[in-house]
Amino acid sequence: MSKKPDFDALVNNKRIDNVDTSALNILFSLFDKPEVISFAAGLPTQELFPREELVKIAPKVFIEDGAKSLQYGAAEGYAPLREKILARTKNLYGVEKSLDEILLASGSQQAMDLFCKTVIEEGDVIFVETPTYMGALNAFQQYFPKFVSLEMDDEGISIEDLKAKMEMYPNAKCLYTIPTFQNPTGKRMSLARRKELLEAVKDTDLLILEDNPYGELRYSGEELPTLLALDDCDRVVYMGTFSKIFVPGTRIGWVLGPKELLAKMKKFESAGELQGNTITQHLANAYMEEFDLEAHIVEIKDCYRKRRDAMLEALEKYMPEGCTWTHPDGGLFLWVTMPENANTNDAFDYCVAEGAAYCPGEGFFANDVKYNYLRMNFSPHTEEVIDKGVKMIGDGLKKYLATL
Amino acid sequence: MSKKPDFDALVNNKRIDNVDTSALNILFSLFDKPEVISFAAGLPTQELFPREELVKIAPKVFIEDGAKSLQYGAAEGYAPLREKILARTKNLYGVEKSLDEILLASGSQQAMDLFCKTVIEEGDVIFVETPTYMGALNAFQQYFPKFVSLEMDDEGISIEDLKAKMEMYPNAKCLYTIPTFQNPTGKRMSLARRKELLEAVKDTDLLILEDNPYGELRYSGEELPTLLALDDCDRVVYMGTFSKIFVPGTRIGWVLGPKELLAKMKKFESAGELQGNTITQHLANAYMEEFDLEAHIVEIKDCYRKRRDAMLEALEKYMPEGCTWTHPDGGLFLWVTMPENANTNDAFDYCVAEGAAYCPGEGFFANDVKYNYLRMNFSPHTEEVIDKGVKMIGDGLKKYLATL
Repeated sequence: MSKKPDFDALVNNKRIDNVDTSALNILFSLFDKPEVISFAAGLPTQELFPREELVKIAPKVFIEDGAKSLQYGAAEGYAPLREKILARTKNLYGVEKSLDEILLASGSQQAMDLFCKTVIEEGDVIFVETPTYMGALNAFQQYFPKFVSLEMDDEGISIEDLKAKMEMYPNAKCLYTIPTFQNPTGKRMSLARRKELLEAVKDTDLLILEDNPYGELRYSGEELPTLLALDDCDRVVYMGTFSKIFVPGTRIGWVLGPKELLAKMKKFESAGELQGNTITQHLANAYMEEFDLEAHIVEIKDCYRKRRDAMLEALEKYMPEGCTWTHPDGGLFLWVTMPENANTNDAFDYCVAEGAAYCPGEGFFANDVKYNYLRMNFSPHTEEVIDKGVKMIGDGLKKYLATL
Repeated sequence: MSKKPDFDALVNNKRIDNVDTSALNILFSLFDKPEVISFAAGLPTQELFPREELVKIAPKVFIEDGAKSLQYGAAEGYAPLREKILARTKNLYGVEKSLDEILLASGSQQAMDLFCKTVIEEGDVIFVETPTYMGALNAFQQYFPKFVSLEMDDEGISIEDLKAKMEMYPNAKCLYTIPTFQNPTGKRMSLARRKELLEAVKDTDLLILEDNPYGELRYSGEELPTLLALDDCDRVVYMGTFSKIFVPGTRIGWVLGPKELLAKMKKFESAGELQGNTITQHLANAYMEEFDLEAHIVEIKDCYRKRRDAMLEALEKYMPEGCTWTHPDGGLFLWVTMPENANTNDAFDYCVAEGAAYCPGEGFFANDVKYNYLRMNFSPHTEEVIDKGVKMIGDGLKKYLATL
C-alpha cells in the first residue's frame, strides 16, 4: 500500500489561508432553499436574456464562422469583438483606444487576476473603498497585498483621507474603485470628486483600477464621465463586462489600459489560461452585428428602474425604525445601515425564517469590519415579489432587533 | 499635466521576467503568413467540428435552459456535465470518482494555474519530462518553482534518473507528466514504466500531475491504463479536456483528484475567475445528451490515423539523412531529431521560405536546452497537404544543413 500524500502539509497554506471567502458561506446556505426570496446575490434578471436572438445567430456562429469560433483563438481575444467594444467606448465615454489597448478576459474577475499577476508584489499597498466589492478583495488576496481602506461619503472616496493615506503609504501601487453605482452601496462618485481624485494623485505612480460593471445601468440623474475619460496620463486601467448588459454566462470582461501594461497582462493570459472563450466571444460579436445591444440595454434599464423604485418604496413601508439606506441612481444594489449594535449575520436567520434573504455586509470591508450593514439586490425580482420579500426582511429584522 | 506612471518600475518584474514565452515568438511570426503550410501549432482539424450539431442543440441550450445556461453558475462547474465526465471516466479508465472529486476549468491551462496557486510555493521543485509541454512550463513559471528535468527513453521517464533526483530533492512537490502520446514527442509511457513510477514514489508526499489531453486519440497499439487508474493512494491529480475530442473553443478542461485538494483549488477558481463558462458547459452537456460523442471520437481517430501515416510516409521520403523521428501510436505530434550541430531556430526560416513551418524544439526544455529538435503536428492537414508540406520542410532542412 502506498502512502497517501499529506495534503495539509504539501499545499500552499499561506495563499489558501489568505483568501478569505468565509463571507460567502452564509450565501451558499441559500442554495438548498430555493423557496427563499433572495436579494443576496448580484444576479441580473434572467427574463431579459436574449434567448431567441442567440438561437437565431447560432448558424452564423457555429456553421459560417465555425472554423474560427470553435478553434483555438488569440490570447487578447477576438479582434472584431474588441473593435466593437472600442467603438462603444468611444460612443459612450468619448475615449478612443486602439486594438493594443484592449484585452478580453474571462469576466472582470479574471481581469483582476491578470492585473494582480502583472502588478502586485507581496506587501504592495492597494487602496480600496469602504466598503468595497468582496470579490475584488478575494482576487487581490491571492497575491498578498496590504489593503488600506479609504473613507467614503455620499460623493465617493474622501480626498482628505486619500491624501493622508498617500502620505503614510507613498509607494502604494494602486487604487481600486467602482466609481459608478458601486457594489455594495450603489453610490456614485460625483464629478467634482472624480476630478479631485485624479488631481490628488497626479504626481505619483499610483495606478487607478476603475471597475465599471454597472455604469451603463443609470435610471436617474445626469451622465458622468468615467475616470478613464478624465485621465490624461494613462493612469487608469478600466474594466468593463457583458455580464450586466448582455449575458453573464458569456464570461466576457475587458480591460482598457496603457499598451505597455496590457502587453504584460497578455503574457499571463497566455500562461494562465491560454485565451478566453472563443465561442462566447463570437456569440457576443454576432449578437452586436445582428441585433441592437443599445435597445436591449434600454429595456434592461426600464425594468430595473421600476424594481429599484419598488424596493425603495417597500423599504419605506417595511423597514424597522433606525435603519437607513442609499437611494442609487443606477446599478443593481442598495446598502442598508442598521443601528450600530445590530449584527446582520445574526439577523440573517430571522429574515430567512420569514422567507427572504439579503447579503450581510461583513464581507465588503477590507479592514475594520462593520457588522451593521446589509446589501440588497433589486434586479432579479418583479415589483410584486420585491414588495413581498422586503416585507419579510422588515419583519425578520424587527424580530431580531427585539432580541437585542 | 499629470505624471505618466512609470510602468517599468511599478509592475511585478520578477514574475513577468520569470515567464519565458520567447519560444512562441517564432510561431507568432507565422500569423502574417497564412499561405505557409504550418505543422507548428497543436490545432485539431476544423473539418470535424460538429457545427450542424451545435446549431441543433442551440434551442435547448439558449431557450429551454436559458435561465441557467446564460446566468452565473457554480465555481465547480455545471453538475450534469461533471456527472457525464465522471461516467466517461468510469467507462474509459475504470475509475470511479464522486462529484466533489471533479472540478471544471477554463481549459487544462487554467487547471494548471489553479493547481499551482493551490500547491506551489516559491522554490518548490517540480519534476518535468525532457522534453515537456512548453505551455505547462509557462503556467508553472508564474509561481517560481525550480524545474528538475527527468531523462526519458522510448518507454517514458527513466526511473533510475527519477530515483536519483528524488534523493537530491526529497521535498519535491510534484511530478508533471503527459504519459500518453506526449506533447511534444508523441511517446507513450509503457505499462511497466507506469507501475515502476508509482512504486518509486509510493513512500513520499510527491503529487503526480497527469495531463491527458491526447489519451483518447489512439490509432495503433494496445490500450494502457492511466496513472489515475493505477493510483491507490490519491496521489494522482488528473487533467482532461474537450479540446482534442470535441471543440477547443469551448475552453473546458477538468481536474480529477482528491477532494481535499479540489476544495482548495475551487477557492482559487472563485477568487481568480468566479467560475468557468456556463454557456459552453451547457453546450457540451447538451451535445453529449443529443449526439454520440464516442462515435465522433472514432471519426476523429480515423482521420488522424491517416494523417499520422501520411506524415510518417512523407518523412521517410523527404527528410535529409541524419534525421530521425518518433512513430507515435496516437496524439497529434511527432518529434524529429536533427544532427547535433543543427539549430532548428535557424533552420526555421529556410523551411518557411520553401512554404512550410514546424515548431522549433527549444521551448520544450525546462533545463539544458537542446536546439536540434523540432515538433510536427499532423492533425490539421489532409494527406495531400501533409505530403506537400513535409517535402517543403525536407527541402528547407537540406538547404539549411548545407550551410553548416
